[in-house]
Amino acid sequence: MITSTSNQRVKQITQWQEKARARRQDGVFLAEGLKMYQEAPADLVREVYLTESLLEQLKNRRQESEQNDINIEEKLEKTGFELVTQEVIARMSDTQTPQGILTVLQRPAYELEQMLQVKRPLLVLLEDLQDPGNLGTILRTGEGAGITGVIMSKKTVDIFNPKTIRATMGSIYRVPFLYVEDLGETVEMLRERGIRVYAAHLQGQTYYSSFSFTGGTAFLIGNEGNGLCRETAEQADSYLKIPMEGRVESLNAAIAASLLVYEAHRQRNAGTAGSSGM
Amino acid sequence: MITSTSNQRVKQITQWQEKARARRQDGVFLAEGLKMYQEAPADLVREVYLTESLLEQLKNRRQESEQNDINIEEKLEKTGFELVTQEVIARMSDTQTPQGILTVLQRPAYELEQMLQVKRPLLVLLEDLQDPGNLGTILRTGEGAGITGVIMSKKTVDIFNPKTIRATMGSIYRVPFLYVEDLGETVEMLRERGIRVYAAHLQGQTYYSSFSFTGGTAFLIGNEGNGLCRETAEQADSYLKIPMEGRVESLNAAIAASLLVYEAHRQRNAGTAGSSGM
Repeated sequence: MITSTSNQRVKQITQWQEKARARRQDGVFLAEGLKMYQEAPADLVREVYLTESLLEQLKNRRQESEQNDINIEEKLEKTGFELVTQEVIARMSDTQTPQGILTVLQRPAYELEQMLQVKRPLLVLLEDLQDPGNLGTILRTGEGAGITGVIMSKKTVDIFNPKTIRATMGSIYRVPFLYVEDLGETVEMLRERGIRVYAAHLQGQTYYSSFSFTGGTAFLIGNEGNGLCRETAEQADSYLKIPMEGRVESLNAAIAASLLVYEAHRQRNAGTAGSSGM
Repeated sequence: MITSTSNQRVKQITQWQEKARARRQDGVFLAEGLKMYQEAPADLVREVYLTESLLEQLKNRRQESEQNDINIEEKLEKTGFELVTQEVIARMSDTQTPQGILTVLQRPAYELEQMLQVKRPLLVLLEDLQDPGNLGTILRTGEGAGITGVIMSKKTVDIFNPKTIRATMGSIYRVPFLYVEDLGETVEMLRERGIRVYAAHLQGQTYYSSFSFTGGTAFLIGNEGNGLCRETAEQADSYLKIPMEGRVESLNAAIAASLLVYEAHRQRNAGTAGSSGM
């Protein structure tokens, strides 16, 4: 059990929380909370830190035999864990109200080819997005809409930022993603592969819902403040416009991305008008 | 010019920034930045605080005769303003990087009847939403989709929270809103007035895009963590489901609201398939 905040592991974790470079050098990222631990692919889990009081809670719940919590205990046996005090978890945590469990994971690595080996790819391309919450929300909503991957320019915010990880609500484990050196080149390559690339652009003149997204589709979303670079936007097949009433000049980047991917989902599932997979 | 951070006005502003009750008692809210000042209805502006360096910038730009900035100077003459130092604006500001201008405004007041005096009302009803950024984003996206109002349960986060105001990007000035004592009663009343009320609900079995939102429509959105209360949800005409692929259990509340209002916009404008109001 780790009881001192000056323990070397604690120092290492706080460094990983704060520094993108330290995370990158060591090839890791951090995920806080029980849900994030539950959904973590066991083969990526490197270290688990847990408070005694949370462990107690899990054991007590087990006696009430809730299925989910039994699985957590089995998982803890499999991945191993280290007990820490409340004070230590508070120091390790990026949040004001730590949930009593923190997981260190190895970064997954994806290839572009993987994202394209589906019948009708549905991709989100992000240029220099800066807000970690927006990026996380795009992964979460993207998974919901059935996207097959997210491709980011190298100046996009670190996807392993703790705020991004939190906002993904677990989608970080399941949505393939990739940083690329030159997003314009990627756009060109995708087009050669028969994927239509649409730039969300204030100068677009055709409403997004007028296009067909039933074939291979990629949506290009620009930086929160400046939108897409002209060079990148011009590589796209078409500009599309999100209609805006009133005096609204633009939408939040995560909102814009969500509207587009869910419009693609709607079109691709037209006919299956309703009931869930029950 | 205010040069001391112990000036009474500075103390008053910081109190308004920090305390919802102080804002409510005095019937005011605060808006930071040039865009928020530019878009503020002049008759609601009570006080304006401006740094000398921003005033200089505005004058210099005027000489280059940019239309927008001439309007700002005219507006400043009309509303009046008080010069403050950088140190003072930093103290008054809620943000890390104050923009050099802060506006104190009188709160607008709306009536429910106002929201209903349109041909086909499009309302968003929020139950106990807690995240100020989500609320602001819903106003911004809502204006973009052409909603006619937002109605909130009394436990919903303060719409005049500085983070909410910032996230609205000016929509706070233009989207009518209202807090109500009993959201269930409001739902009942809206239904009596012929407005169809849809609850976004995980137990919904029909996809949202299968409903018609071309008539009077209201969307009920629940709290981020817990969703809608059963009692409130049961008052609705229908539950609707936002489809979710993968292992996504729910969407962010602002994302869910945005998908719904934009689907209504799409349906209401079907046929006007494209070019903007150019």
